[in-house]
Amino acid sequence: MERLEFERPADIEARSFQIISQELGPHGFDSATEQVVKRVIHATADFEFARTLVFSDGAVQYGAKALRAGAHIVTDTTMVAAGINKRVLGAFGGEVHTFVADPDVAEEARSRGVTRSLVSMERAARLDGPLVFAIGNAPTALIRLCELLDAGAMRMPELVVGVPVGFVNVVESKELVEKSAKNYIVSRGRKGGSTVAAAIVNALLYLDSRR
Amino acid sequence: MERLEFERPADIEARSFQIISQELGPHGFDSATEQVVKRVIHATADFEFARTLVFSDGAVQYGAKALRAGAHIVTDTTMVAAGINKRVLGAFGGEVHTFVADPDVAEEARSRGVTRSLVSMERAARLDGPLVFAIGNAPTALIRLCELLDAGAMRMPELVVGVPVGFVNVVESKELVEKSAKNYIVSRGRKGGSTVAAAIVNALLYLDSRR
Repeated sequence: MERLEFERPADIEARSFQIISQELGPHGFDSATEQVVKRVIHATADFEFARTLVFSDGAVQYGAKALRAGAHIVTDTTMVAAGINKRVLGAFGGEVHTFVADPDVAEEARSRGVTRSLVSMERAARLDGPLVFAIGNAPTALIRLCELLDAGAMRMPELVVGVPVGFVNVVESKELVEKSAKNYIVSRGRKGGSTVAAAIVNALLYLDSRR
Repeated sequence: MERLEFERPADIEARSFQIISQELGPHGFDSATEQVVKRVIHATADFEFARTLVFSDGAVQYGAKALRAGAHIVTDTTMVAAGINKRVLGAFGGEVHTFVADPDVAEEARSRGVTRSLVSMERAARLDGPLVFAIGNAPTALIRLCELLDAGAMRMPELVVGVPVGFVNVVESKELVEKSAKNYIVSRGRKGGSTVAAAIVNALLYLDSRR
């Protein structure tokens, strides 16, 4: 019954990361960044992210430090929010904010003919305190966030995780983040997604922890 | 301002599916199955799923029909649940059930030394009525589901969407589904995930609808 051996959750995760290390091979990531890259591969089984993930200098360290100090997280979708380990985040004092499903956001988006994601970033810009943005889906959210930052209309986030997925405005939205945000983690190209955004945030939360 | 042109949500989705159709090229899918494949590519920007997604005969039609008749959905994670369009599902009379986050599931998993996902499938097996399973993450959930089906310990689901992602027991868990379930959609190999599971379910919900 070899399979049963791997039904213990901690064993499954440890063995998964062993396989990822073997197949990833030599790389140039520092050890904190390596943890983020590996957790994204763990969540996607897609080694392409080892080439497409781009980190501003010290992004992982800044992000982890901010979360440890109680920074709140803004996500573009309820899926990203669902994927974040809120037990660990809450222990640091953080909370997740997702405005996209609010009825009045939907109403405003309809009347303006824009995406709910765009309006939800305008709501997030009004939040006080240090923030980490985790955008896994909506390029319009990321584009609006960059516009608000460029206009000085909101406080610079501690970190922007910009990993939308898709075919329209997605590549461009990530290029904007690299220009507009101080600290960022993006997945260049079309790939990304809610699971990638949540994996990055969780890797930051787990950094140096024994869980 | 060409970019603003694409801030209208319906335009973004239509243009995305145009691009997917162009790049996917000729294929052998019937038109209902094609919609599912394209929605998975839309959610992942990964055309590999056009080769790895496997459908039992009529799986898409069975699944769509069951959901239209009010079948409930069981997911392995709250992320999959978050990604499902519950407005459309609810209009058909369906609900989403996710047991993995229940405190007593966690307690039982700890005491037995198994994953919460495994225990959550045992809970799902007790549900009455027609069910669609959407497993995007946990191979242990899928394996336990197949064991319960093989043992005749639960009603055969209308459809099993088996698309866990990862490195340990993942490939094998999907092979089991192809043997144990009557109607199934699986992603062969390591890839899959919550976004893939939700995209498949949503494609079934949207089939033949004008949304």
